[in-house]
Parts: sequence; C-alpha cells; structure tokens
Amino acid sequence: MSKRVSTIGEFALIELITARLPAQDDVLVGPGDDAAVVAAPDGRFVVTTDLLVERRHFRRDWSSAYDIGQKAAAQNLSDVAAMGARPTTLLLGLALPPETAVDWVLELVDGLRDECDRAKASIVGGDISRADAVVLAITAHGSLDGRPPVLRRGARPGDVVVLGGRVGWAAAGLALLTGDRREPAELVTAHRRPRPPYPLGAELAAAGATAMCDVSDGLLQDLGHIADASRVGIELDSTAFEVPGIMRQAADLLGVDPLGWMLTGGDDNALVACLPAPAAVPAGCVVIGTVVREPGVRVDGAVWSGPGGHDHFRR
Amino acid sequence: MSKRVSTIGEFALIELITARLPAQDDVLVGPGDDAAVVAAPDGRFVVTTDLLVERRHFRRDWSSAYDIGQKAAAQNLSDVAAMGARPTTLLLGLALPPETAVDWVLELVDGLRDECDRAKASIVGGDISRADAVVLAITAHGSLDGRPPVLRRGARPGDVVVLGGRVGWAAAGLALLTGDRREPAELVTAHRRPRPPYPLGAELAAAGATAMCDVSDGLLQDLGHIADASRVGIELDSTAFEVPGIMRQAADLLGVDPLGWMLTGGDDNALVACLPAPAAVPAGCVVIGTVVREPGVRVDGAVWSGPGGHDHFRR
Repeated sequence: MSKRVSTIGEFALIELITARLPAQDDVLVGPGDDAAVVAAPDGRFVVTTDLLVERRHFRRDWSSAYDIGQKAAAQNLSDVAAMGARPTTLLLGLALPPETAVDWVLELVDGLRDECDRAKASIVGGDISRADAVVLAITAHGSLDGRPPVLRRGARPGDVVVLGGRVGWAAAGLALLTGDRREPAELVTAHRRPRPPYPLGAELAAAGATAMCDVSDGLLQDLGHIADASRVGIELDSTAFEVPGIMRQAADLLGVDPLGWMLTGGDDNALVACLPAPAAVPAGCVVIGTVVREPGVRVDGAVWSGPGGHDHFRR
Repeated sequence: MSKRVSTIGEFALIELITARLPAQDDVLVGPGDDAAVVAAPDGRFVVTTDLLVERRHFRRDWSSAYDIGQKAAAQNLSDVAAMGARPTTLLLGLALPPETAVDWVLELVDGLRDECDRAKASIVGGDISRADAVVLAITAHGSLDGRPPVLRRGARPGDVVVLGGRVGWAAAGLALLTGDRREPAELVTAHRRPRPPYPLGAELAAAGATAMCDVSDGLLQDLGHIADASRVGIELDSTAFEVPGIMRQAADLLGVDPLGWMLTGGDDNALVACLPAPAAVPAGCVVIGTVVREPGVRVDGAVWSGPGGHDHFRR
C-alpha cells in the first residue's frame, strides 16, 4: 500500500517529484529556488495556463494518474504550438487531498514528464498545496525562434483552412465511457491521452499561417474564434472529413452521427490554421474549407444544427 | 445583488476581467489568444507559480476579494524579486464555485491588478474553471535585465545577512484574527495585504548578493533553505530585530513573545539576502546576522526553541 502525502509531508513529496524530472537545454535554473530561469533565445516567450479540476476535467475512476498528467501537459503544450511556437517549459501547481497516495502523484508527474518529452519541453517548477479535490494548474512556455506569433485574428478571405491532427476521437471515447463501454479501445485511449501534433505548430507558422488555434472546445467553436477575431467567415466542406472506420463503428454502436464528434468534439488538441492559397500544405494536414467575407462558420453552406460547444459555467 | 458567474457564463466573465487589465510595455500579445507573448529583453525569463486554496490560504470571511487578489499577486511577484529580477507579467488560473458573485471576482482581479501595478507588472492571461472551492493559481515572470540570478546556494562564510522589508507583521495580524480581535488594525491589515519591497530584489542583486530568498515560510525556515543550499550556517543577532511598538502591544495583548512572530512568521514577503562584507547595504535593509561555516541557523548562538515553520500536509 502506497504512503499518503500527509505521511511524508510537502517537502519530501517535492523532492520525490523533482528527482524524476530531467531538464533540457532551455532550463537555466530548474526547480528548488524561489523561481526558475528559462532561456528565451529570441528575446520573447509564449506563455499559457490552464486549470484542471477533478470531476470537472477528469475523473480518477476513468483515467489513471499517468493519463491525467499526460493530458494536462498536452493541452497546454498544444496552446503553445498553436501560436507557432516550440514548447520549452512547463510548471505544475498541484492541489491534493492529504489522503492522496504518493504513488498516484508520482504517476501523474510521470505522465506530465513523458508528454513534455514528446514535445521536447521540461518541467521547471511548481507548487503543492492541500485541498479537498485534486486541482492541476499548468503553465507552459514556448519559443517563437524569431518567427512572428500566429494569432487568431489574421485570417483573410481566400485563405484555405487546414487541419492538422485528429478531431472527434476524444469525443467518441468520452461518449463510449459515458455509455459504460470500454471498446473500441483506441477511441477510449484517445479520450484519455490526446496526441497533439506539436511540430506542426512551427511548420504551419513557417508555411505562412495567417491564423491558428488548437481545437480544444470543438472545431466549429474554435474556428468561430478565428472567424470572429479575424472578422471573416469560414466555409467547411463536410466531404473533406474522412470518418475513420473505428469512429463509424462507435457511432453505429451509440446511434449518433460521427460528423458531430469531428465538428464539435474537443480535447484532441488538433491544430487548425488558415494559409494563403495556394500555399504548400504541410504533410499531416488536410484542407477542410476556405475563408470567406460573410461572418460565421458554415458546414456545406449552412449553420451546423448538431450539438454545440462548451461553457464551463452554463453547461 | 450581484450576478453570479453561472448566470453570465465563462466567456462573458473573461471579457469583463480582461477589460479591467492595462498592459505595460513587456506585453507583446495580451489575453485573448491561445497564449500570450512577453518580452524577455536579455534572452532569459524568471518564472514562479503558486496555488492559493480557499480555507487553506485565505478565508472569504476574513479577507475581501480585493485583499485576496493583492496577496496572491504579492507572494508570486515577491518570489520573482527574490531572484534579483524585475517583475514583468502574471497569469491567473481561477477555479470558482458557480454561485460566486461576479462582483467578488472583479474585486479579486482589481486586487491582483493593483498589486501588479505596484510591481510594474501586467496580467497577460489566465484560465477560469468551475470547482467546489475557490482556487487561485498564479504564475509570475520577471526579467533579470542582464544580471545573473541570485540563488539560495551562493552564500559564503563571512557574508553579512541583510533583511529588507517587514517580518512578523502578518503573523501578528493572523494571531489577532484567530483570537477574534481586529485591532491593532495596522497588523490585521498586514496579514491581509503584504507589502513586498519589490525594487530591493534588483538592488540587492546589483549590490552583489550571493544568496537571496523571500520570507514566505518564516525567517528561520527560509534562512535554513539558504544555509542548506549553500552548505553554510547562519548566526542571527536578536538585538538587530527592533520590535515595533505596535507589535509589542499586540504581543502583550495575546501574551506571546513578539520575536517569535518575527523569526517564524511567514507571509510578509520580506527579502533576506547575503552580501559580501563589507558591502554597501541598500537603503531599507538592516544587517541581522552573519554567514558561518557551522551548519544550521542559530539565534544568539542557540537553535531557536520557539514555534517553527510550516508544512502544508503535516500541520
């Protein structure tokens, strides 16, 4: 039986955690002082932060500590990539009930660390506190390496809309779990462990992306953010979305339209960008639509009438 | 009666918050995109993060939203100053029960913003989520402006130990509140609103500080971190601590030794540093001891036998 965090105390827990963390070249001063020091080679840094709250963003009975850590890192590192930046570092604020098992915490840290490794980023610091529910507060940084940041507001009529990475997989996995199903396992795993296409962020920026964001709230809603910020509209072509066989199988099981998952499902952390046409579309991306003058986001010329996005207080 | 956050929703709340936030020159891209972009003029940045949990770090019946925000900003910006850096930016992760009043949130943001103004820093981003208790996750950044960072591990025997800012005030204020007293008001206010001496961080660094940290866990415990990291000891001279009249008055009321508050009380966010002797001690700092070879921290030659520091899981 694993020890509990209340048994070993805050400082011993921090030592166990930091002992598991390798540091890459960007880390000039790592954990253990009042603050960390990180390289910002081009004189700027990209920074984003997210809160993940138990029972709101994850359930300990649905996801392992490792999966929760990996997902938490992924969604922040993905926001960094969506600026066209290379992820560099991450900080972890961790609120824990005192009865939490030390092993659970260390597995969580392993998940964070391994996802940071995938993105070539390092964990450079954090904070631990006691609370009634587990809360993760992640802050991630990145370097633009001399490129301008790619914002949401630069899309222009005539641009093509390109998608990099998977959409709808996490939503399908969540629908299966909600229906007490654990198969197809690949979709359930996709809900538990997103696989953001980190290097595509910098590649799309280098390809001249005029606007970009990651798909965290759902493709339509996130494209809506680009359209609103850029004062343009977006026309999507539903035939550009090839529904994977495994997703069609899950949709048949649950009696739903899989296109709904792809258009409105969040949490896969795909990247969606606008590129001037004709631009070289990076490998791993597909063209799914075009930027137009008329405001709004439409699918095959009409407003999507399926289920919508996500609001933390209203749902 | 103020609206509740569940009534207006996440996106409207974020708009209300960001409308209140001015940006200083270091902010290249502010709130509203996937991430912010911040200047790092010397190619490095300092970063620190803290979690503040309701009923653990603050109580809504003891402190106003404004005070909670100000204190949360102060303790992070103080960690940045303790590296010898100039605070630049801050991010706010905010978990809220849905019934929280919108006005309470906006007052909290005002407190954060005003403390950032004191430190000449800007709020550049954040995240909002729903939770059962209020949790603040703060990340603060700073710039070293070409100076090396001042770590905990550089103190050398023969250095003098200097203190900048107040110690024991917050502990006295907390003791008064715990005893259901609201006077002396200046001490109670000190508990609610620390006043870190931000510019002293860069000044002590420029004066050649070999080690520095901010006093958040209590002077003896934080000096213990410097002593351990530097593999030295520290001898404090209790006569160097002039007990303010107001603190002596509070100590008499509660029947305690005020030196205990000054030596072990946290939350004032003073700065304590080691300087090579003889060094010019910046104005606003007093010499309180010397660095010696023998490990440990002693007061007048003996280990302090009063009440100790702080551990989040063991207390």
